[in-house]
Amino acid sequence: MPIQYNEFYNQRTGLTIGLNKLLFSVQSDYQLVEVFETDTWGNLMTIDGMVMLSEKDEFVYHEMLSHVALFTHPNPERVLIIGGGDGGTAREVLKHPSVKQVDMVEIDKTVVDASKLHFPDVGDFSNPKLKVLYEDGIAFVKNVETPYNVIIIDGSDPVGPAEGLFEKDFYQFCLHALTEDGVLTAQTESPWVESYYPSMKKVFYALEDLFPISKMYLSFIPLYPAGMWSMACASKKINPLSSEVSAKIKQSDRITSHLKYYNADVHSGSFALPNFVQKIIQR
Amino acid sequence: MPIQYNEFYNQRTGLTIGLNKLLFSVQSDYQLVEVFETDTWGNLMTIDGMVMLSEKDEFVYHEMLSHVALFTHPNPERVLIIGGGDGGTAREVLKHPSVKQVDMVEIDKTVVDASKLHFPDVGDFSNPKLKVLYEDGIAFVKNVETPYNVIIIDGSDPVGPAEGLFEKDFYQFCLHALTEDGVLTAQTESPWVESYYPSMKKVFYALEDLFPISKMYLSFIPLYPAGMWSMACASKKINPLSSEVSAKIKQSDRITSHLKYYNADVHSGSFALPNFVQKIIQR
Repeated sequence: MPIQYNEFYNQRTGLTIGLNKLLFSVQSDYQLVEVFETDTWGNLMTIDGMVMLSEKDEFVYHEMLSHVALFTHPNPERVLIIGGGDGGTAREVLKHPSVKQVDMVEIDKTVVDASKLHFPDVGDFSNPKLKVLYEDGIAFVKNVETPYNVIIIDGSDPVGPAEGLFEKDFYQFCLHALTEDGVLTAQTESPWVESYYPSMKKVFYALEDLFPISKMYLSFIPLYPAGMWSMACASKKINPLSSEVSAKIKQSDRITSHLKYYNADVHSGSFALPNFVQKIIQR
Repeated sequence: MPIQYNEFYNQRTGLTIGLNKLLFSVQSDYQLVEVFETDTWGNLMTIDGMVMLSEKDEFVYHEMLSHVALFTHPNPERVLIIGGGDGGTAREVLKHPSVKQVDMVEIDKTVVDASKLHFPDVGDFSNPKLKVLYEDGIAFVKNVETPYNVIIIDGSDPVGPAEGLFEKDFYQFCLHALTEDGVLTAQTESPWVESYYPSMKKVFYALEDLFPISKMYLSFIPLYPAGMWSMACASKKINPLSSEVSAKIKQSDRITSHLKYYNADVHSGSFALPNFVQKIIQR
């Protein structure tokens, strides 16, 4: 039997990945963080047995979670990331020249340690604009004094320490922690596992109740359950599908030409929801 | 050990599906056709060990392969399907009231037999507009006398009997078998397996050389490798992204409101290609 990673998200349906060896395994105060060397996906990080990222496919998740928010805001200077311990989201945020400060609030230092050791191209931790705080994200957002232009919720799955990131109370705090033209994005799991963990519905309803503009969008992520991943975008003022946003993306070729996934067409196209996905978030 | 279906598309990366029992297993003249009862996806058909469809997710593939072509053509009456033995593509095509005749050319009767027995909701084989021919699709297209408005290439993977459906010669025959406003769609595998089987590139280059308009589009298919599937759309006259096509879809609520995946936004959004996918088909 070859060594295998198996993640079953739907009874016995799941993903199988061939592993070469275990590189890192630490049970932190919060969760089990592991890194494996795989045969074809580079290094792979799992938390409590669930895939977080691989070196080969991490670009999709990190580009889509960050650039949709950063391009929607006209001039993002102050950005807050909740979670995001591997550093990939911060790396993408820091590609925007307008950004002056990125605060990343990660509850579990073990994730950052694992990333620094085994995902050297994912994090950009030495960037002087980035401040990493090892704190509880929910408590942090509750106490924000100087609001942010953009907040990105880059938590793990809604079991364990990230559970609170799917609750309405948390988004209420986010609303107050954002400037009056503020934009928020959040990862909200797969439409195909919604019947097991109703994450999309929960987050979308909360955002719809709180923000003037709230939309869901989709990305193709090969190592996440079903390969179809949803994210939410909420905004106080600017519609992510407005012509201003589209023009801003098209003028930012210096950023987008180096990306592997995100571009102006993908930005708008990702908000096109199949009928069965629309049905999930319909009240 | 539970009974499992395993499909490895990338060394040891793949999909694992829990199986209850084997329902059908016939080695035909062309391939091994099997049907399993699964724990959560309904019945599942594999050909030579590769997933063709499950009852739960077949709607994505069949809607996206057929409606993109059928809505791009202004008035499709005569439609040719190459392959498509399970009947799902024909079922979607027959939802368009303008369609008068659907010829489905399937090389392997075993696939149709398996579908009739174990996928009763997929095929609409008793529809008088549908004619099923058990012939070689390539030879059939070569000898078409009355051209078709739409041709849909619904073949299996580019190993075995469907190999010829990825060759330029075949698309040359298709060009001649289409009316002067003809539209073609074809399944072209996953961008994530392109380095193993360069199917997208091969079909796209052939279509780009032959047709005035040729584009690739993407669908989320959970039980296909990586969950990201590409399809090609070639057209002699009408751009699938024109405002006329968009208006036609929006006016066809009687069809689209009953679909589970396809709608006007999904039609156009699916043509938005991530940078790494654009790179695959760039000359």
